[in-house]
Amino acid sequence: MPAPSIDLNCDLGEGFGVWRLGDDEALLDIVTSANVACGFHAGDPQIMSGVVRRAAARGVAVGAQVSYADLRGFGRRDLDVPATELTADVLYQLGALEALARAAGTRVSYVKPHGALYHRITRDPVQAAAVVEALVAFGGLPLLTLPGSVAAGFATDGGLTVIAEAYADRGYTAAGGLVPRSSVGALVTDPGAVVSRVVRMVTEGVVVAVTGELVPVEAASICVHGDTPGAVALAQAVRDGLSSAGVGLATFAA
Amino acid sequence: MPAPSIDLNCDLGEGFGVWRLGDDEALLDIVTSANVACGFHAGDPQIMSGVVRRAAARGVAVGAQVSYADLRGFGRRDLDVPATELTADVLYQLGALEALARAAGTRVSYVKPHGALYHRITRDPVQAAAVVEALVAFGGLPLLTLPGSVAAGFATDGGLTVIAEAYADRGYTAAGGLVPRSSVGALVTDPGAVVSRVVRMVTEGVVVAVTGELVPVEAASICVHGDTPGAVALAQAVRDGLSSAGVGLATFAA
Amino acid sequence: MPAPSIDLNCDLGEGFGVWRLGDDEALLDIVTSANVACGFHAGDPQIMSGVVRRAAARGVAVGAQVSYADLRGFGRRDLDVPATELTADVLYQLGALEALARAAGTRVSYVKPHGALYHRITRDPVQAAAVVEALVAFGGLPLLTLPGSVAAGFATDGGLTVIAEAYADRGYTAAGGLVPRSSVGALVTDPGAVVSRVVRMVTEGVVVAVTGELVPVEAASICVHGDTPGAVALAQAVRDGLSSAGVGLATFAA
Amino acid sequence: MPAPSIDLNCDLGEGFGVWRLGDDEALLDIVTSANVACGFHAGDPQIMSGVVRRAAARGVAVGAQVSYADLRGFGRRDLDVPATELTADVLYQLGALEALARAAGTRVSYVKPHGALYHRITRDPVQAAAVVEALVAFGGLPLLTLPGSVAAGFATDGGLTVIAEAYADRGYTAAGGLVPRSSVGALVTDPGAVVSRVVRMVTEGVVVAVTGELVPVEAASICVHGDTPGAVALAQAVRDGLSSAGVGLATFAA
Repeated sequence: MPAPSIDLNCDLGEGFGVWRLGDDEALLDIVTSANVACGFHAGDPQIMSGVVRRAAARGVAVGAQVSYADLRGFGRRDLDVPATELTADVLYQLGALEALARAAGTRVSYVKPHGALYHRITRDPVQAAAVVEALVAFGGLPLLTLPGSVAAGFATDGGLTVIAEAYADRGYTAAGGLVPRSSVGALVTDPGAVVSRVVRMVTEGVVVAVTGELVPVEAASICVHGDTPGAVALAQAVRDGLSSAGVGLATFAA
Repeated sequence: MPAPSIDLNCDLGEGFGVWRLGDDEALLDIVTSANVACGFHAGDPQIMSGVVRRAAARGVAVGAQVSYADLRGFGRRDLDVPATELTADVLYQLGALEALARAAGTRVSYVKPHGALYHRITRDPVQAAAVVEALVAFGGLPLLTLPGSVAAGFATDGGLTVIAEAYADRGYTAAGGLVPRSSVGALVTDPGAVVSRVVRMVTEGVVVAVTGELVPVEAASICVHGDTPGAVALAQAVRDGLSSAGVGLATFAA
Repeated sequence: MPAPSIDLNCDLGEGFGVWRLGDDEALLDIVTSANVACGFHAGDPQIMSGVVRRAAARGVAVGAQVSYADLRGFGRRDLDVPATELTADVLYQLGALEALARAAGTRVSYVKPHGALYHRITRDPVQAAAVVEALVAFGGLPLLTLPGSVAAGFATDGGLTVIAEAYADRGYTAAGGLVPRSSVGALVTDPGAVVSRVVRMVTEGVVVAVTGELVPVEAASICVHGDTPGAVALAQAVRDGLSSAGVGLATFAA
Repeated sequence: MPAPSIDLNCDLGEGFGVWRLGDDEALLDIVTSANVACGFHAGDPQIMSGVVRRAAARGVAVGAQVSYADLRGFGRRDLDVPATELTADVLYQLGALEALARAAGTRVSYVKPHGALYHRITRDPVQAAAVVEALVAFGGLPLLTLPGSVAAGFATDGGLTVIAEAYADRGYTAAGGLVPRSSVGALVTDPGAVVSRVVRMVTEGVVVAVTGELVPVEAASICVHGDTPGAVALAQAVRDGLSSAGVGLATFAA
């Protein structure tokens, strides 16, 4: 039986102009997949270009972190974008990142929507279909999303590969969903607990819910955060913990 | 001897959000090449998507009207963008338009920089080289520019095709350059004069300068404007005049 | 008994950069109150400056058309802006317009929120309170809104003057509300009908609902639209119709 | 003879959306004047509101850091803005900050243009006059600028107070100007040297030029930077050094 392996993904390139968020350089040495901001919630072309070059040099897979056009709100605010507009917005961002990735010797190999769009398409069929339509039109990129989401269903129906994602530091409900950020238990902050949870997710396919139950969790990729205090150390601890547990690290997008 | 033929190009898709500029629909029935705004000076993804779909339906070639990131100034203000940033900006716009064009069943087949960037690279070697670098990295798109410009030289050196452009309604100096917009004779406004000038440019390769001399003018494409009063009628007159003179209309990008 | 008088208001200055929307010049000769866009959904400082100068020259009252920061969506998309952020956004826009108005020899004399924000505060107490807080902090500007709205209640409680607004060309429900734009009867398009409805609103305080009932309507100001085909002619017809009916035109903000 | 006193100014509120630049909180405990970004190169209304509230609570004077509309370039890129547009842009920013300052119980008491605009108006009479026109129209705010600049001349002619500014950590030429950032000696990095230079500027009115000469320097305010590594410690050292030298700290704007 082959050793299990898993992908680690992280949001990167989330600065704009003079501003930066997170330590891209350090995180690129830890993760296997880089979700690169595409200019709509963060990320300008120069920042994008820098991230894809560094990702290419390290063999880290490049994903498009497509989002609503909302720089001021960092793409975290729900936006009622009509379907045809959303499809065009996603295609625009995919193409923009692809051009920069190609120039850097790599390519966009998956899509992970950002912020409010990420959550919206887990439940809104109109916007989910609009995103999937863009991915299909772009040639069929895999979609990184929560397993069981509305978007996952549409993506599968559209012939796309769906990559199930789990979160290293988020609490889970007994139903297998994420504890809302506003609720107690939304975030797991103890590094040791984070690491052991991730190892168990990957090797046993389970996580302990905030209410104590052992619930199944499907994960082809683990999301680590890059913009919180201690983010780099925590990501490194997750990587080291997985290695110690005999889990290999490899992008799903290879 | 085959009948001469020429390309007619026009700036299109130069709206943003609720705003529009020019009659895209009518102009797409007249021109053979559509310079599509890419979101930096005008053009949002939905507008871009609409223009490339209509262009594809009519067999009109799609070009990328790349520009400085300056929505407020419509890309008409000079901007000291460092070379690496400019290359990234151009790649970003090219990729964005390409993705929308591909989804519409067509592709980006040439580049015509817009406004201040267009003029800057006719004389600034740093920015000209930066633009050419993006075009080469994107696969070698032809560049539509003034013959003899600094950008034309760099493009040729970089292995790109240079498409010489002449202006239907602009005055020319005795040296073969454009009369600056702030000077007398910058614009030819009489429709009959515009048409006969264009016909002569294409069939004889000459234009009468503002100072009376007959000067040679190289033109593989004629630019007609879309955002002035009477623009559509003038563009149609140019097209009709060329047909009457036995000149075929065909994109250089075919 | 004095002759009745009414205010006519219209959205103005809704261009951006090179783009324009509506015929500001013509409308300023018709209306008595100008709702000036403040840069968040439309309107840049130069456009704003031009409108307030022309309004000052004609004695037209200047109102602040504050809105969500959403240029791409023209402020028509609902946005979950937290209360403190919204208060700051509104203050920012009020101050910006006030500075330009003062330089033009006039002042901001009322506020009419735009688009999605206008509708949101008719029902959302959090955002309504946030807007009212800004108006109070700015010195107590009158608020132009639908009578009976949540915002009207908060404004009254906060000591602000509430100006009841009615719409010249919108259909009304039997309950006295506006027929939603997506429903049949949302717009009254016959100019004669528009004029006679407005005259009746002002002189009798009633309007015929889309379902035939005669319903009371409170109106201290009538909104005419500036960005639809025939807008100027319709606005002029409304003005002329009111004059013919012996109704004077005067801003509430005098 | 009274003890000398001096003002310390620093750029603050230079974040946008989720992004931050510099430690506003710490710097507000050190400086006597806060140059607050007004949304054009940095600073959104919520950030501006937070800074003016904290400044008001500490009795720190609030100045408007007006700039070109260039978020992507952080206002550091020269922009050919026509005079009437620039005057409107400056008025817009002044009014916006004033509204937020008033709501916080303080007011805008001076103006320090930012970045490219700051430098442009030291030599460009058209833009200098446009900025001064805005300040006069706004009621006559003092202008913080380099002594002897074109803007200083126009401001004096226009009846404005000019506040001469010197830089704590910049090298000076023998002519009394700043060493360009691209040249050797542009920045003084040794904290001890910075402190002793500032003390000498204030108590003796001189600075040692990069070429060794002792040159006179006029300073009613000393600029400390907030966005460099060690900025807070350096600013504190400057403050402490001045106190040790018996120099009082007080805003010119009191």
